[in-house]
Amino acid sequence: MTAFPPVPLTVEGSYVLHQVFAFDWAAWNNTSMEDRKRIGDEAARALQELEPQQSALYSTLGHKGDLLLVHFRDSIAALNAIELKLAQIGLSRFLKATYSYLSVVELSLYESSRKTYAMLAENGLEQFSPAWNAGIREVLERQKEAMAQRLIPTIPPARHLCFYPMNRKRGEERNWYALPLDERQRLMHDHGMIGRRYADRVRQIISASIGFDDWEWSVDLFADDPLVFKHLIYEMRFDEASSLYAEFGPFYVGIRMAADGLDSWLRGDSA
Amino acid sequence: MTAFPPVPLTVEGSYVLHQVFAFDWAAWNNTSMEDRKRIGDEAARALQELEPQQSALYSTLGHKGDLLLVHFRDSIAALNAIELKLAQIGLSRFLKATYSYLSVVELSLYESSRKTYAMLAENGLEQFSPAWNAGIREVLERQKEAMAQRLIPTIPPARHLCFYPMNRKRGEERNWYALPLDERQRLMHDHGMIGRRYADRVRQIISASIGFDDWEWSVDLFADDPLVFKHLIYEMRFDEASSLYAEFGPFYVGIRMAADGLDSWLRGDSA
Amino acid sequence: MTAFPPVPLTVEGSYVLHQVFAFDWAAWNNTSMEDRKRIGDEAARALQELEPQQSALYSTLGHKGDLLLVHFRDSIAALNAIELKLAQIGLSRFLKATYSYLSVVELSLYESSRKTYAMLAENGLEQFSPAWNAGIREVLERQKEAMAQRLIPTIPPARHLCFYPMNRKRGEERNWYALPLDERQRLMHDHGMIGRRYADRVRQIISASIGFDDWEWSVDLFADDPLVFKHLIYEMRFDEASSLYAEFGPFYVGIRMAADGLDSWLRGDSA
Amino acid sequence: MTAFPPVPLTVEGSYVLHQVFAFDWAAWNNTSMEDRKRIGDEAARALQELEPQQSALYSTLGHKGDLLLVHFRDSIAALNAIELKLAQIGLSRFLKATYSYLSVVELSLYESSRKTYAMLAENGLEQFSPAWNAGIREVLERQKEAMAQRLIPTIPPARHLCFYPMNRKRGEERNWYALPLDERQRLMHDHGMIGRRYADRVRQIISASIGFDDWEWSVDLFADDPLVFKHLIYEMRFDEASSLYAEFGPFYVGIRMAADGLDSWLRGDSA
Amino acid sequence: MTAFPPVPLTVEGSYVLHQVFAFDWAAWNNTSMEDRKRIGDEAARALQELEPQQSALYSTLGHKGDLLLVHFRDSIAALNAIELKLAQIGLSRFLKATYSYLSVVELSLYESSRKTYAMLAENGLEQFSPAWNAGIREVLERQKEAMAQRLIPTIPPARHLCFYPMNRKRGEERNWYALPLDERQRLMHDHGMIGRRYADRVRQIISASIGFDDWEWSVDLFADDPLVFKHLIYEMRFDEASSLYAEFGPFYVGIRMAADGLDSWLRGDSA
Repeated sequence: MTAFPPVPLTVEGSYVLHQVFAFDWAAWNNTSMEDRKRIGDEAARALQELEPQQSALYSTLGHKGDLLLVHFRDSIAALNAIELKLAQIGLSRFLKATYSYLSVVELSLYESSRKTYAMLAENGLEQFSPAWNAGIREVLERQKEAMAQRLIPTIPPARHLCFYPMNRKRGEERNWYALPLDERQRLMHDHGMIGRRYADRVRQIISASIGFDDWEWSVDLFADDPLVFKHLIYEMRFDEASSLYAEFGPFYVGIRMAADGLDSWLRGDSA
Repeated sequence: MTAFPPVPLTVEGSYVLHQVFAFDWAAWNNTSMEDRKRIGDEAARALQELEPQQSALYSTLGHKGDLLLVHFRDSIAALNAIELKLAQIGLSRFLKATYSYLSVVELSLYESSRKTYAMLAENGLEQFSPAWNAGIREVLERQKEAMAQRLIPTIPPARHLCFYPMNRKRGEERNWYALPLDERQRLMHDHGMIGRRYADRVRQIISASIGFDDWEWSVDLFADDPLVFKHLIYEMRFDEASSLYAEFGPFYVGIRMAADGLDSWLRGDSA
Repeated sequence: MTAFPPVPLTVEGSYVLHQVFAFDWAAWNNTSMEDRKRIGDEAARALQELEPQQSALYSTLGHKGDLLLVHFRDSIAALNAIELKLAQIGLSRFLKATYSYLSVVELSLYESSRKTYAMLAENGLEQFSPAWNAGIREVLERQKEAMAQRLIPTIPPARHLCFYPMNRKRGEERNWYALPLDERQRLMHDHGMIGRRYADRVRQIISASIGFDDWEWSVDLFADDPLVFKHLIYEMRFDEASSLYAEFGPFYVGIRMAADGLDSWLRGDSA
Repeated sequence: MTAFPPVPLTVEGSYVLHQVFAFDWAAWNNTSMEDRKRIGDEAARALQELEPQQSALYSTLGHKGDLLLVHFRDSIAALNAIELKLAQIGLSRFLKATYSYLSVVELSLYESSRKTYAMLAENGLEQFSPAWNAGIREVLERQKEAMAQRLIPTIPPARHLCFYPMNRKRGEERNWYALPLDERQRLMHDHGMIGRRYADRVRQIISASIGFDDWEWSVDLFADDPLVFKHLIYEMRFDEASSLYAEFGPFYVGIRMAADGLDSWLRGDSA
Repeated sequence: MTAFPPVPLTVEGSYVLHQVFAFDWAAWNNTSMEDRKRIGDEAARALQELEPQQSALYSTLGHKGDLLLVHFRDSIAALNAIELKLAQIGLSRFLKATYSYLSVVELSLYESSRKTYAMLAENGLEQFSPAWNAGIREVLERQKEAMAQRLIPTIPPARHLCFYPMNRKRGEERNWYALPLDERQRLMHDHGMIGRRYADRVRQIISASIGFDDWEWSVDLFADDPLVFKHLIYEMRFDEASSLYAEFGPFYVGIRMAADGLDSWLRGDSA
């Protein structure tokens, strides 16, 4: 039996930056109405420019933050440029960054991985040989094209966002990375079946952050009814991929605001 | 034997936001008496408006916070609206958010789950088929109606609150989410029996926060005598559901204040 | 064989609040001598009033805090009243709360528990029946009276305080709460034997904080020679109750100051 | 059989300091254009002076920091001197240190270790005897000379940096430090084979921080395409050295800026 | 066979306080040259006074702190007096305490413990009997006298300091405190043998902090060449006492400054 590489094939798309800010209401309320208007208008204009390039604004709850921005762009440099640009507008004086997350949209091709590895082995190609590498590259390019819409996503217009980073566990006994590829494929398949039953109510974007940020993946769920977040995640927590192998970071829930809704938010009126 | 879904049926009610604030006494004491009066009156009016919509105010102890607010509302948006509204009043300048918690009132129908799953299986319905889904939905709707008072609760008037978030453990050996439904039902039943013996001295509201905040559930206990909190939680810590499978977050204890008690609190007089 | 409740009988006394503050020396040194005098006098008077009601002041070391206050009172409300009162005096502007702890003095009656449970069982009383409850209540009331001095303690005048919160472990294999009552009684007995050998050099007050704060218990040791803290705790760390089942929070050491010693402390002179 | 020392031979080179700073845009934007120009010019000059001595500047993303500096020098004192020097320039007023890391470039000679230990044993030399020590010293000196370029590296000009600290696990069952040298050598060899396949796309510098900072090693990866970071680290996570024995700290990603690019960065323009 | 007490005999000497401070360069640079001179002179004088009483000053690197002070004194009160005194000088306004550590110099007499316990048992003395206690006391007094120089140490003049706190592990399987005294003695002996080989290059002072601070021990290493810290600690990490049973806190490295070197440090010149 030929051992396959343990790493599943993946394709990547947009880079993603989440920014969470606490808003300094005390300073804002202490600012003249005239300045507030000017600063608010400038901020709305900046956000209106970002929006069609795939940025979205959310109102968040609690001490962890007041505003959450998500940006999808084609490079880390483009995300950094947004940060620098936003730092120049007047509103930035009232924003204190409390969390952020850098990742890249990823699709794990567990199904394809096994088939491709098996096919290349059957063709007698040695792992990591130029021919084998070319075979892999060809599969990845085909998949990347076929999945372009999911890899370079348009931000779903849903009213609520649920965002959280996560790891796969490497415990002394339960270790995701020590499982054979076949086993991981089975677990991810079962995991995916739950998601499929929720497909009409929630849209999910997975991005990878190994090498980019402090957790391994980040999950964004978009739904009109936030109760769906709870039902989906609770149900998933019982599947093996999550119950045995998932480790969760902080959870953020946001209510979508259009850039031109910022104005009323700044007056304390939620949409 | 038919395998049942591992997820217990649940019904949900009001969304809940806990807000914990440190109060900036130094700045307050440095504010003119006239301004203090004006700001205090405005705050009392704002809280008086919120109170009948199911908000309650507590004085808390220690460095973790000075004031704790609990709000029950019918949507996350309504909770966000409260936050934005409170951020506009003068008192907000003296309040620094130190903790918060977002959740939704939940009842776990462990008893019903098994019966319903068994009944639907006996009727030959395949899991997640339209007919099966309809059968589940019917049960949930009936239960939701029957339990409306507990799902959309009125805040108990008890003098003390004990609030804490918690998880069910997913250890390498002890893993709540890897237990069969039957076993979890038995454990929750035993757990509930302890609660029942305290029913005359303490009122308990459980809310779920999977997908909403950093722990899985939040517990609010309401009692006149705070010693009951200790006795109940200590006794529960020995039952299997807690001793083996519970993980606890921070604990907050508060002393109830009516909105019109805020005035004397701001003068340093506890009720 | 009748199974006994796993919970040991306990009696409770005074509620306890520990307050740890960092002192803002920069701001203090920047205050006029006249104001310092006035503020110091006011603070000393406030503390002098609290002292005989069982409050004590300690000078602490390091970045975790500069001043530590311990208060024993008959209710949580009374402790909250102290906090509010202290927040009104001028000195509070220089105090930043860095830690605090809320608990209630507790005596665990492991010895009595077994005897009482056995006696009630021999008398044929069913657990939690009204007669059984009455039997328990009677024992508790008798004990509470007999132990009143330890439950409502006078703060020992010793020169040093050592304070720390702790938990009993609930590990996957080593789980205090999964041990039978008999086993815990044996461990607590051995644990107590060590304490007894130190009884002439150190006074110990245990308070429970399950349901009140983030750890399960808090320990206060009072001794003239602080080396005794180290010897006692080190020796205890080898008994099974500690080596296998204790989890420790932060440790605070303080040097006792009389309320009228505050004045010289504020001038940088330790007693 | 002779037991060999468990410690692999290592050679060390440059000391390394990573500095991560949050930039206070609010204060900067509030500074006069004239002052900004003066401060920016002074900072660029300071960085231009440091650059050829092996310092590099990166723009980082998110709440963890805005600017990242890496310095390679021949002593800790030289690194400290940089810190003190940078603290004197006007820009330092806008920089808040959020993270830092002190380490020393290290090459682990696993291959050589075994051979050397075996050779010295064959020669009948007793471990840690003067002759044995001299034998070891000779090997180390030879290696140090041969590897001088890797030990005292020039900072690669790649467009992106990925920096993170890490530990080898000492779990109750999986304990890197309890493995025999042979086993660790095998694991490090397999680990290295993955790196080799990426050698044309990424440059890696490992530095040790046992005794210097809070983790045991620090890793710097330099690549033009940041996706390579993810692919390399993800693939490595499945090898035994990482899946079973690695523990990772925070990850920082930066975009390289020349010292004279700072000027445009300070105007909010990324390169 | 007589069971011996599990606690090794220990003798204690000087109390130790580590203080780590971040220095507010922005405020300092904003202070008039005249004031800087005055404040710097005052600070140098204060430190010059402390130095011969066994205090030492170090320049530290990174975000964890800029200055580190170590004080050895004969009581906790004397250490507290230093803190209060330093808080009065002008420089304290620029110092923000970021870490501290309170401990007492300790020598563990593992070798003596066994011999003494055995001897007293052979003499037929019952543990903890007055005669047994007297026997122990006699040994301790003799040792304390013999080891006075190590217990009340003079701070070594070495150019570098490495300081870190640590615990002995109490894991579910690997538990230092559940090992028999014999086994711990063997492990400590092996551990000590490594140290001995480094004795000419590094000086080590161990202090105990059980009951005083958040870890159980603190280690100070003094060496001219800081690479020795890495070599020593790395080598020790493979011995059983460390690989299986040590848990490490934060590490701090400092470069020694004489009190009269502070002046040039404050001008940004490292020695």
